[in-house]
Amino acid sequence: MLIVMEHNAAEHDIRAVVAQIEAQGYKAESIPGGDRVAIGVLGNTGYVDETPFRGMAGVREFIHVTKPYKLVSRDFHPEDTIVEVGGVKIGWNQPPVMIAGPCAIESREQLQEASRVVKEAGASILRGGAFKPRTGPHSFQGLGYEGVKILSEMSKEVGLPSVTEVMRIDQLEMVAKYSDCLQIGARNMQNFDLLKEAAKIDKPILLKRGMSATLEEFLAAAEYLLAGGNPNVILCERGIRTFERALRNTLDLSVIPYLKKVTHLPVIVDPSHAIGVRDIIPHLVKAAIVVGAAGVMVEVHPKPACALCDGPQSLNPEGFIKMMRELKILQIALDTGEEG
Amino acid sequence: MLIVMEHNAAEHDIRAVVAQIEAQGYKAESIPGGDRVAIGVLGNTGYVDETPFRGMAGVREFIHVTKPYKLVSRDFHPEDTIVEVGGVKIGWNQPPVMIAGPCAIESREQLQEASRVVKEAGASILRGGAFKPRTGPHSFQGLGYEGVKILSEMSKEVGLPSVTEVMRIDQLEMVAKYSDCLQIGARNMQNFDLLKEAAKIDKPILLKRGMSATLEEFLAAAEYLLAGGNPNVILCERGIRTFERALRNTLDLSVIPYLKKVTHLPVIVDPSHAIGVRDIIPHLVKAAIVVGAAGVMVEVHPKPACALCDGPQSLNPEGFIKMMRELKILQIALDTGEEG
Amino acid sequence: MLIVMEHNAAEHDIRAVVAQIEAQGYKAESIPGGDRVAIGVLGNTGYVDETPFRGMAGVREFIHVTKPYKLVSRDFHPEDTIVEVGGVKIGWNQPPVMIAGPCAIESREQLQEASRVVKEAGASILRGGAFKPRTGPHSFQGLGYEGVKILSEMSKEVGLPSVTEVMRIDQLEMVAKYSDCLQIGARNMQNFDLLKEAAKIDKPILLKRGMSATLEEFLAAAEYLLAGGNPNVILCERGIRTFERALRNTLDLSVIPYLKKVTHLPVIVDPSHAIGVRDIIPHLVKAAIVVGAAGVMVEVHPKPACALCDGPQSLNPEGFIKMMRELKILQIALDTGEEG
Amino acid sequence: MLIVMEHNAAEHDIRAVVAQIEAQGYKAESIPGGDRVAIGVLGNTGYVDETPFRGMAGVREFIHVTKPYKLVSRDFHPEDTIVEVGGVKIGWNQPPVMIAGPCAIESREQLQEASRVVKEAGASILRGGAFKPRTGPHSFQGLGYEGVKILSEMSKEVGLPSVTEVMRIDQLEMVAKYSDCLQIGARNMQNFDLLKEAAKIDKPILLKRGMSATLEEFLAAAEYLLAGGNPNVILCERGIRTFERALRNTLDLSVIPYLKKVTHLPVIVDPSHAIGVRDIIPHLVKAAIVVGAAGVMVEVHPKPACALCDGPQSLNPEGFIKMMRELKILQIALDTGEEG
Repeated sequence: MLIVMEHNAAEHDIRAVVAQIEAQGYKAESIPGGDRVAIGVLGNTGYVDETPFRGMAGVREFIHVTKPYKLVSRDFHPEDTIVEVGGVKIGWNQPPVMIAGPCAIESREQLQEASRVVKEAGASILRGGAFKPRTGPHSFQGLGYEGVKILSEMSKEVGLPSVTEVMRIDQLEMVAKYSDCLQIGARNMQNFDLLKEAAKIDKPILLKRGMSATLEEFLAAAEYLLAGGNPNVILCERGIRTFERALRNTLDLSVIPYLKKVTHLPVIVDPSHAIGVRDIIPHLVKAAIVVGAAGVMVEVHPKPACALCDGPQSLNPEGFIKMMRELKILQIALDTGEEG
Repeated sequence: MLIVMEHNAAEHDIRAVVAQIEAQGYKAESIPGGDRVAIGVLGNTGYVDETPFRGMAGVREFIHVTKPYKLVSRDFHPEDTIVEVGGVKIGWNQPPVMIAGPCAIESREQLQEASRVVKEAGASILRGGAFKPRTGPHSFQGLGYEGVKILSEMSKEVGLPSVTEVMRIDQLEMVAKYSDCLQIGARNMQNFDLLKEAAKIDKPILLKRGMSATLEEFLAAAEYLLAGGNPNVILCERGIRTFERALRNTLDLSVIPYLKKVTHLPVIVDPSHAIGVRDIIPHLVKAAIVVGAAGVMVEVHPKPACALCDGPQSLNPEGFIKMMRELKILQIALDTGEEG
Repeated sequence: MLIVMEHNAAEHDIRAVVAQIEAQGYKAESIPGGDRVAIGVLGNTGYVDETPFRGMAGVREFIHVTKPYKLVSRDFHPEDTIVEVGGVKIGWNQPPVMIAGPCAIESREQLQEASRVVKEAGASILRGGAFKPRTGPHSFQGLGYEGVKILSEMSKEVGLPSVTEVMRIDQLEMVAKYSDCLQIGARNMQNFDLLKEAAKIDKPILLKRGMSATLEEFLAAAEYLLAGGNPNVILCERGIRTFERALRNTLDLSVIPYLKKVTHLPVIVDPSHAIGVRDIIPHLVKAAIVVGAAGVMVEVHPKPACALCDGPQSLNPEGFIKMMRELKILQIALDTGEEG
Repeated sequence: MLIVMEHNAAEHDIRAVVAQIEAQGYKAESIPGGDRVAIGVLGNTGYVDETPFRGMAGVREFIHVTKPYKLVSRDFHPEDTIVEVGGVKIGWNQPPVMIAGPCAIESREQLQEASRVVKEAGASILRGGAFKPRTGPHSFQGLGYEGVKILSEMSKEVGLPSVTEVMRIDQLEMVAKYSDCLQIGARNMQNFDLLKEAAKIDKPILLKRGMSATLEEFLAAAEYLLAGGNPNVILCERGIRTFERALRNTLDLSVIPYLKKVTHLPVIVDPSHAIGVRDIIPHLVKAAIVVGAAGVMVEVHPKPACALCDGPQSLNPEGFIKMMRELKILQIALDTGEEG
């Protein structure tokens, strides 16, 4: 940590800060700059707590060099983590994985039809929401446990592992019995108690980035899962909230190669929620693969116009099949490019 | 609702939309504009579901005129709601209420000292956190139930009702026994299951605006509480996340007079979390009162430099006492101004 | 335009608005909704001015259905505009164009070396900045007209048309003599006088999106150029400012397929300024091509470590050559995919 | 400056950076942290250029302790700057100044009426726009020089100094002849050439914060004016662009006390543009005064409903007079509070 002093900090203020650093068991190193003095805190083995220095006279700013997470960082775990979801491997240098299915499970028939389409077109994991977070209380809230059971059935019927969202602690155990991977949604990324309890579950967790979470906060949220005992974490970029509202959210694909440098945990992309416009989604799916995402999650609905939730962002079967065919050709090009 | 058609929408596309509107039991009114046709949906008695119209040929955009909330809206409940917290009244046209106390409860001694200070200086409600949401798992997470009990004791000792945060469903009942008002924090504003369960509790709820929640989403979250049976809701503006990071968050005080027009629920302001710099806070407290907030919540710590959490944003006793004195004079001026 | 009335608007308020609409020569169509009345303004042939209705009793909101631009809209000009820069064609369904060169022109030698690299590797247009907008006055501000002349020389020497930025009106004519395309940067996107004067120049204009410009404002800025007489406009997405600062800006590639639907003007992508981290840039260049951009602009510097400006975001010659090779393979895959 | 090295930076990478620091004439100080080494650059007398260190092996990040501005900083100029506009003093600890008038000058009659109102109600400076920046080219662009002359006439007639916006370099000299203060608007805050030329004019400059400008960029823009020779600069906070669009912009009043600590230049507040809703504005004006702003600028129009530009945000004469009366009482309370 670096403690930056005010321009006009007195000599005795600086000495007091140095004394406090030493009292904490660290070494202090004064760095006289052009405008002001900064004091380096040396000899720490982890994140330095700034508390003892707060409010001291002449102190202007704290600059943390060490991050608020450690277990998720590639610095301390250089090898890629490969998460297995019902036998399907997800990791940075693995073939990208396609997770597909309807936004919300509406009925056995609807999910069956969707499952067959995504299986046939080559998806690896089936998705479907049973508990739906909705902005207002007057909208469809999902089928609940009935939906979870339908998902489990269809997952077995078509032979694809499944992922579904959990929203409250008492759902964790039950959903873990029926599904291969538990999703924690964007609105719950900083529901720290849900994270703490999910950390104890013996199933992989798919953690979505919060609507306005910095990458540092995103990684610190994942740190809750690893610190609590669950190393099988998949991160999911799904767009952030910005001033631009022409499309629903702003999907920043540059975070993919950035996160690849910073964390060993795989990161996938969900363009459906970010964009909310059907015919743009396949473009973003391809772009996600091109920038190196470990996988992609998309919404597919047998009849998007009749969907109870998020219809405009769901691909129809034909659209999904066409996209999967184009992705295969793209993958060949990417593999060729890298060999070259 | 208004359904805006594409510029080049065909006549039969328009007819199909009109037919669908009528099939839903509404009346359709075609509005031919300069560039494109829009079709009004008439005869609805609440929020119109756009689902049946999604994906129809030629449809460009849906414009909702009716909002996703109703119970919280002043349109349908013109009189101010006055929430009582342990006998203290909070409402738009009531004298503004001061809620004060430490960010986190650290010990009996710390809270006792803080309680006496805030009581003597004229605060009406005592705050103190027992369950603390922290970005990373390696930071102090609060004293938990022990903290809740200390708060209850001190609340009685100094004779001030109390408010404290809950973070998980299984805390609701227990905390409601010990505290006069339950806070749901910014990170949990869209933890819809927590809202649904809090709606069943017979204590007022203080709901903070999420870091990137629009006012519409904020009101729709409060709608969960009212729809679930709890009409005693206090809203709290605490700063939003923007590109500017010189101060911690961006505290938008203009939302106070705006919300006063839109909702009957009282709105208070918490400048401590938004600003994070001690000597700026009293300025913002005064400004909050001036724009008409129903109350203010500030952090006061007997020794801010030793605080385990958010020290730099806590007022010390002298600062708080000075601020309260200045507020009294300000209030007289405001009352005089309005009479004039 | 739709005029939304307050919930409690009186009947005579509504009648007054209707009368005002008719006084303006339009037809009024009242649309009684569940919560409030909205009044449609019909019979307009362009953007309806809301001025005469402002401040009228009972009026809550104006919803514009018609956009503040027309000439740039695909609605009124369905065919792609193909802009020619020194013989190179840039358009939505043309092969994507590579614009490359150093951020700032530093010397004849530096530009010569960069020009040869980008030419040999297959770029189509040479870029180089002579007038540099810098946050503070104490940074390198570019070589000015000397730089423009060096660019012109090198452009001829290697046989590539050139593009360079203009920052003030009195530079327009002179720079237009020496360069094939004039760039108006993000900070000047709403320098409306510069736009008005650039509209009179007989050279294509490359207009960058402002740091916090909505797509609507971006298109309205381009409308200044078309309205002023210059139809040869290339738009450039270069990242927007958001709360996330891990990377410099947030590059939203989903705007590319979105803009393709909305405007006939070609849109290219500049990932260098958005990202600011060298080894991430080639990923984003590929992604831009995949989502359908009409071209890409990247910074290439013979010795990035010695660059006077924006070194960390410049590709070195080896990096650029490798990227261009990979792009060729990618392009074949994309062409194959579309044929399939 | 602090150069943060990668976690796994090799010993010889660190030595190379140290050698480069010394080659630049500075002293290097290695600060071994828990996770990584940071190297302090010592002995600088101003902003350290990071160029020579860019791209060096093992370098992760540069942390600047010295800011990109100096002349505007209170560190180097502790006393408040007091700017005189036609004899009216504007400064941090001066009585707050009221600048008022119509958004756009529409006619002699309109400005005359507005001028008389604002003069009588106690405003100190008259504002009025002659050159108007408009999002699209099809809107009213202002009366131009004719407007400037009308403003000058009315300024003399009622005896109030005037301020008006300039948008292009060739307007500077002419407008400076007729007006007491030149405004540079938000969209031109980083029109660096306009700043450079305005720096040579012998009239005070009112510089508005850009829509998405950080405070650091805002101060660096003002640095252009001071560095170019014009010390008479007034800064103006007018709201920033965020995800929230219920009101037009987000007006962050906490920047006022923050800037008071950082700069000696006076900062005023313009709530009209931020809010865009008439009846909310007086609340924000009072709040601006309460947080210590050096002045306030508001739009007043004799007949807001007929305004050619920004009508809904203009106060009518009665509203302005009422607000001025309330401000007087408020000011007394503030003065009393501070004496206490």
